[in-house]
Amino acid sequence: MKRVSFESDYNNGTLPEILSRLIAENDNKTSGYGSDPYTASAKEKIRQAIGCPDADIFFLIGGTQTNQTVIDALLLGCEGVIAAESAHINVHESGAIEAYGHKVLVIPSEGSKLTAKGIDQYMSAFLADETYPHMVLPRMVYITMPTELGMLYTKQEIEDIQEVCRRYDLLLYADGARLGYGLTSSQSDITLPWLAQHVDAFYIGGTKVGAMFGEAVVFSNIKAPRAFFTTVKRHGALLAKGRMLGIQFDTLFTDNLYLRVARHANEMAERLRGIFISHGIQMGVDSPTNQQFVILTPQEKEQLMESIAFEVWSPLPDGNILCRFVTSWATTEEDLLALDKALAGLA
Amino acid sequence: MKRVSFESDYNNGTLPEILSRLIAENDNKTSGYGSDPYTASAKEKIRQAIGCPDADIFFLIGGTQTNQTVIDALLLGCEGVIAAESAHINVHESGAIEAYGHKVLVIPSEGSKLTAKGIDQYMSAFLADETYPHMVLPRMVYITMPTELGMLYTKQEIEDIQEVCRRYDLLLYADGARLGYGLTSSQSDITLPWLAQHVDAFYIGGTKVGAMFGEAVVFSNIKAPRAFFTTVKRHGALLAKGRMLGIQFDTLFTDNLYLRVARHANEMAERLRGIFISHGIQMGVDSPTNQQFVILTPQEKEQLMESIAFEVWSPLPDGNILCRFVTSWATTEEDLLALDKALAGLA
Amino acid sequence: MKRVSFESDYNNGTLPEILSRLIAENDNKTSGYGSDPYTASAKEKIRQAIGCPDADIFFLIGGTQTNQTVIDALLLGCEGVIAAESAHINVHESGAIEAYGHKVLVIPSEGSKLTAKGIDQYMSAFLADETYPHMVLPRMVYITMPTELGMLYTKQEIEDIQEVCRRYDLLLYADGARLGYGLTSSQSDITLPWLAQHVDAFYIGGTKVGAMFGEAVVFSNIKAPRAFFTTVKRHGALLAKGRMLGIQFDTLFTDNLYLRVARHANEMAERLRGIFISHGIQMGVDSPTNQQFVILTPQEKEQLMESIAFEVWSPLPDGNILCRFVTSWATTEEDLLALDKALAGLA
Amino acid sequence: MKRVSFESDYNNGTLPEILSRLIAENDNKTSGYGSDPYTASAKEKIRQAIGCPDADIFFLIGGTQTNQTVIDALLLGCEGVIAAESAHINVHESGAIEAYGHKVLVIPSEGSKLTAKGIDQYMSAFLADETYPHMVLPRMVYITMPTELGMLYTKQEIEDIQEVCRRYDLLLYADGARLGYGLTSSQSDITLPWLAQHVDAFYIGGTKVGAMFGEAVVFSNIKAPRAFFTTVKRHGALLAKGRMLGIQFDTLFTDNLYLRVARHANEMAERLRGIFISHGIQMGVDSPTNQQFVILTPQEKEQLMESIAFEVWSPLPDGNILCRFVTSWATTEEDLLALDKALAGLA
Repeated sequence: MKRVSFESDYNNGTLPEILSRLIAENDNKTSGYGSDPYTASAKEKIRQAIGCPDADIFFLIGGTQTNQTVIDALLLGCEGVIAAESAHINVHESGAIEAYGHKVLVIPSEGSKLTAKGIDQYMSAFLADETYPHMVLPRMVYITMPTELGMLYTKQEIEDIQEVCRRYDLLLYADGARLGYGLTSSQSDITLPWLAQHVDAFYIGGTKVGAMFGEAVVFSNIKAPRAFFTTVKRHGALLAKGRMLGIQFDTLFTDNLYLRVARHANEMAERLRGIFISHGIQMGVDSPTNQQFVILTPQEKEQLMESIAFEVWSPLPDGNILCRFVTSWATTEEDLLALDKALAGLA
Repeated sequence: MKRVSFESDYNNGTLPEILSRLIAENDNKTSGYGSDPYTASAKEKIRQAIGCPDADIFFLIGGTQTNQTVIDALLLGCEGVIAAESAHINVHESGAIEAYGHKVLVIPSEGSKLTAKGIDQYMSAFLADETYPHMVLPRMVYITMPTELGMLYTKQEIEDIQEVCRRYDLLLYADGARLGYGLTSSQSDITLPWLAQHVDAFYIGGTKVGAMFGEAVVFSNIKAPRAFFTTVKRHGALLAKGRMLGIQFDTLFTDNLYLRVARHANEMAERLRGIFISHGIQMGVDSPTNQQFVILTPQEKEQLMESIAFEVWSPLPDGNILCRFVTSWATTEEDLLALDKALAGLA
Repeated sequence: MKRVSFESDYNNGTLPEILSRLIAENDNKTSGYGSDPYTASAKEKIRQAIGCPDADIFFLIGGTQTNQTVIDALLLGCEGVIAAESAHINVHESGAIEAYGHKVLVIPSEGSKLTAKGIDQYMSAFLADETYPHMVLPRMVYITMPTELGMLYTKQEIEDIQEVCRRYDLLLYADGARLGYGLTSSQSDITLPWLAQHVDAFYIGGTKVGAMFGEAVVFSNIKAPRAFFTTVKRHGALLAKGRMLGIQFDTLFTDNLYLRVARHANEMAERLRGIFISHGIQMGVDSPTNQQFVILTPQEKEQLMESIAFEVWSPLPDGNILCRFVTSWATTEEDLLALDKALAGLA
Repeated sequence: MKRVSFESDYNNGTLPEILSRLIAENDNKTSGYGSDPYTASAKEKIRQAIGCPDADIFFLIGGTQTNQTVIDALLLGCEGVIAAESAHINVHESGAIEAYGHKVLVIPSEGSKLTAKGIDQYMSAFLADETYPHMVLPRMVYITMPTELGMLYTKQEIEDIQEVCRRYDLLLYADGARLGYGLTSSQSDITLPWLAQHVDAFYIGGTKVGAMFGEAVVFSNIKAPRAFFTTVKRHGALLAKGRMLGIQFDTLFTDNLYLRVARHANEMAERLRGIFISHGIQMGVDSPTNQQFVILTPQEKEQLMESIAFEVWSPLPDGNILCRFVTSWATTEEDLLALDKALAGLA
């Protein structure tokens, strides 16, 4: 199983720093469900890292669960969430948002990014339609940071989106499943405290940034919804041994580990990108984060898969194939060398 | 935090055998969402352990989530699940079953156990009521093994329940959050293969029997419901790094570890019980498993809590307090000695 | 089909006054969905009748739908509604409340009535249980006026319930499917304005009090929940030809028709009760409203059913049968005579 | 209120034939919830009219409710329904489909019509995507007959859709809110029995074709889902005085009334269309049924609204306005004359 794999950033184990910490604390006994000192400490460290001493923070287990729980808690049943067509909640959550009764309102996007202008046009058309009380009422804007295609929002873009959200009384929620990669991208002008100030709620993804599992939900500009703890439990999202989340996030937010491992992955992604280009392979998306999308011919794809694991993203109209290569904390020099060698060997 | 605690069986860390295995496999890369060799191996070992070579098995993360997902997958919206008043799904899941539209149909129980007779009486009265098509239709019987009060069903009792379920076309589902403790109790006449043959579906609890997290859903007498994988995802119950579940259950079902650690906890519970009795403390429930319920005066409770952590279960009509003491893989001789000493010191 | 029937108060046609009005207005054209002058007029008349000039009022079609919509609109997903075991929402709505995710929290009742004491005991025990954040959170008290067994709450009882609701921050909601019969009972000390002041929301049942269909939801002590119109639509509870509801309620609240027809039914019920007693038949419930429950032997039941339609309510432990006889606007002298005669003819 | 209105086909009263029948039967007593002879007779007449002696038929109250109930009953939670962007279930049901957990899967359409080719492309792309088990699984195709824009499917188009549905194991469901207008359009080559054979389920709309309310759900090619009666009740869609639905549909399916009144409306629509064209007004949609869409300048719209009621559909990019004029059983010669006159008077 020690194969060379760029399939995803969850194809690997757990950050050694986290594993060590789990071992070190293993013999202790604590109360369950997040009533433990590790969880308290992790929350405090995140509050400092985001510069919001009063933020309400909760640790959940996975991304779909987190989106489902947060969106359900913030919206009435008849309210919906605006998202790009490519949004994770629209495509890859098996209807988890609808499972709790909420419609995902898809509006036009640029690449995989929503725009303030797009939201504005949608909302003004919505309100101009006299029949809108018979429709799902837009109440939240969902963005991903970075997007499902590895793209980034700029400060200006988020400020504009925030402004349009305020104008139309929409909540702004950022899915940060890969937040670390977004924040540490060489192309990013956004910091964690800045983001916290410019969205109502967001989550800091652990699973895809080195944790075994875990996502930290942050209500940074609004208070947590009433009875949110009970809502988390109702969603099956409350971990009995809650300290396992506390220990992980406490470790991630010690000595900047979260950003350091994300930066490593981004650097490896940039080198991976360089390797593809050096072999004359075309990039399919202009991504400045840890997900790289390349265009392979069917033959290239087949041949490359013999030695390297990666994900087929989608067929292209011209017969070629968009493929995804993802780096993570666990991506090594050897992995890149193996890829370089495999590309060199393509017929 | 190295306090003496009998609060629960999830107040502790992870079985050392599991931790070691997680470390040993940490550098490998595998596909996500359960498409990894550890998960495949774990399923195969469980199939052997239960004697069902064709059983459909899925690994989920926690108990509430598991109950919610299985019950939702097996029932129509208008169908409900019969349970005891004390059932976990009725009391301590924050409405997770109702969240997916299903009513919990509470019927009289003995202690915390359903009886074939009780189910029979309920069903015959239900069907005799001409208005029943206006009611929630009973479709499943939910039992816990052992129950929330640590009690056990006998072979005969389950056979009788199975018979009544077949008569009324009810599915029989066993919540095995603490299954190991039930199977290894000195009072139990049930084995894992026998149980698998006598219920339609059940889950083997990992979280409370030494795992970091994880529950193994087994469809032993019926096929898994159509599209169950997607249903699991929709419930937010699919772990991205699915191999973490595979590794844990593969370890638990190697060399009988699952039953061995449960047996240890039961033995410690029996000794704990002896210690209480030796100090003249009355037991509140006759439990042959790892949860022990004792009756303390308010003063005793206060004094004991100074040195020992445990859970207040419920006040009693006479002013005394029912308290719960739970053992686990992590319960040590020292813990018992500390308890003995603390009890000796009670005024 | 002109048989003598006491099956229910919806076994009949529509009040002639309503039918006439429907005919008189039939050629007019109006906007749909309740944006019509009849609906506006009906709301105004109800506001006057209840003495709440600012009450938010909505017309829905049937009782189950109404309960489902109101409860869903007022509660978070993790919040539940306290009810008596016999409550319509608990028994005869096929899980319509759970369909939108809410648990019905059954607590002990007296007959079919909740008591302030019972609610108080439940709530204080709930809050004393440290694990309550893992439970469904009680947020509403549901009462029926009159109850499913035809019983009435007194002023004092409702005042006491209101007081305990305020103490525990519970909403108080009254299901008035048969409200007219409750208000006009000779035993009732409650008026419509008084009720409106002592509950947060209630509905005035039309279907069972002479309308073809229709229930008027009144938010008398709270504002209607945000976006309630859209919530009604989402529940499939918005009638396209909404004026049919407006016309019916406008007629019912003209010249006191609603109370007059209810009073008629109550009087017929009292005479019906007298007839049963005169024939030595025992009453099963002490009901002062239009539903009368009598105890028949199996033979009596069989024989009586040959000429009279009524509903078998439930078998009794002694082998006899509790049967329900209901009067309505359509109950005539001839119906009572036929019953008297049939009873006289019993072997 | 006797204004000239083309706002909708539910801006009017009830067909006189139905009103007469309601009056004629008003004094009878029958059991509730559809257990009455009128309902039985109506079902039988519909079975004859569609040529399916074994079809399962249920009467519900309104269209949103009907779509919600049928779709919920036929799909698993994780399954979705394919629809055009303009589909009623996607736009104008306030999320009623999502309320029961189901995603509406919007695919490209032609005008407001789905195409076999579009479904085929969607399904083949879906199945080619290896991640599809993480997506909502398509399980049903929803078409409207006629569409929300008054357009018709041809026999060939439906045959092709049926074929592609069978290939991909998709159920085919037709929303017939305005079915009568579709069947009696001069452009239609489809009959009721033919439709019944070529879809799995559909509903015959009453509300918009002269009834006071009511829709007849027909399972013509499949059996009704298990416990559908209880599912209807759970959706709040079961009318207590169910005979009111029976009487209406029994009347509509006597002497071809349903098709006769639809034909009248279509003829009036054709004349209305002629009137607009004669005044040089451009049609916005090529609709052969009772909904006509015309393009007005803002000034025309304002001026026309002074004497005629109609619906503003949507603004057009060029600044003009798409407006909807609808005919029904209640549309008269006078209405058309008034429109003609009003158009003549436009500046």
